[in-house]
Amino acid sequence: MELLDKLNWRYAAKAMNGETVAEDKIKRILEAARLAPTSSGLQPFEIFVIKNQEIKAQIKPFAWNQSVITDCSHLLVFAAWDTYTADRINHMFDLTNEIRGFKNEGWENYRHMLLSSYPQKDTEENFNHAAKQAYIAFSQAITAAAFEGVDTTPLEGFEPEAVDKILGLREKGLRSAVLLPIGYRKDDADWLVNLVKVRKPMEDLVTVID
Amino acid sequence: MELLDKLNWRYAAKAMNGETVAEDKIKRILEAARLAPTSSGLQPFEIFVIKNQEIKAQIKPFAWNQSVITDCSHLLVFAAWDTYTADRINHMFDLTNEIRGFKNEGWENYRHMLLSSYPQKDTEENFNHAAKQAYIAFSQAITAAAFEGVDTTPLEGFEPEAVDKILGLREKGLRSAVLLPIGYRKDDADWLVNLVKVRKPMEDLVTVID
Repeated sequence: MELLDKLNWRYAAKAMNGETVAEDKIKRILEAARLAPTSSGLQPFEIFVIKNQEIKAQIKPFAWNQSVITDCSHLLVFAAWDTYTADRINHMFDLTNEIRGFKNEGWENYRHMLLSSYPQKDTEENFNHAAKQAYIAFSQAITAAAFEGVDTTPLEGFEPEAVDKILGLREKGLRSAVLLPIGYRKDDADWLVNLVKVRKPMEDLVTVID
Repeated sequence: MELLDKLNWRYAAKAMNGETVAEDKIKRILEAARLAPTSSGLQPFEIFVIKNQEIKAQIKPFAWNQSVITDCSHLLVFAAWDTYTADRINHMFDLTNEIRGFKNEGWENYRHMLLSSYPQKDTEENFNHAAKQAYIAFSQAITAAAFEGVDTTPLEGFEPEAVDKILGLREKGLRSAVLLPIGYRKDDADWLVNLVKVRKPMEDLVTVID
């Protein structure tokens, strides 16, 4: 399967060379993230695409000074909803009705079920749930980049509060969940590039219940 | 990009026809999950592949009686580590050294950094972190199934405690995070199959910072 070839090709680039990734490639990577399935179709996150070198430089010290933050072409910040609100839920259900061109009783009942559960939950629980949905899209963006022959660095080692402040996320009801520098590997500066990919053997990962 | 075609083709099947998915397809879907990138390469989850109809039937009432639970071919349960322990961290670092055939000072320092942070953290925080890694693999499994022309139902609507009990996960230090029925759509019983895919427009999802 072509997908497996791409997943074997990719790795977490530890050094990038500053080269710019073409906008049409970025567009398809973002489209893969947009198409990601999410719980109840709510897509409870936004993606900030940082090309500005000054903003990248502001983030860098809050991400262990990792060079890929400034040497990448585009720095993606996946920011999840800080909680689920009635407005946010209604917005997606209304959009669905608008796009599909009809209202459906089952679907409206489902809307009311969500409205009577999510907004009453603990905000931290809701944020965690929203962040998981962002990870589904994050994963699809990583895969899409591999199809474009573009490197990425899945990056959790950063201080979310600092990134939230730099990008003004909290005021928007968002919290940074995970980062994805996108760019091109710098072979001669990357300790990981020539090392064998390590994964658990299948028998340690999978249990079949016949 | 072929990937975008596959992502547009896939949808969350709401009814499946009971047809068996060939084992070579399942193998490649699991391989995509195995290749997923995870934080520090720890792969903090396992995957239970349920083919047994009785076990599926036991789970069904704890998953809103959704028919796909029993009408799928293989039911995947992504179960995340209940916490990060020194043993679990050491196991992956030892495996890495074994596979790569050498010890590296930087890598050993990184091991000690993880050992001095994760195991001391709140177990709920650790489980949530592990579950997010499972979602990356979950996402890659969904994509891989699309490449195989196989349907999936990303499924969060279930009672984790009940599934943990049925599969004996807690005793193994695991907790169910998300389910993925894999099978073939049953067109005439699926309300969703012919409806337009709804996603936020790109401009609502993405903010570019130039």
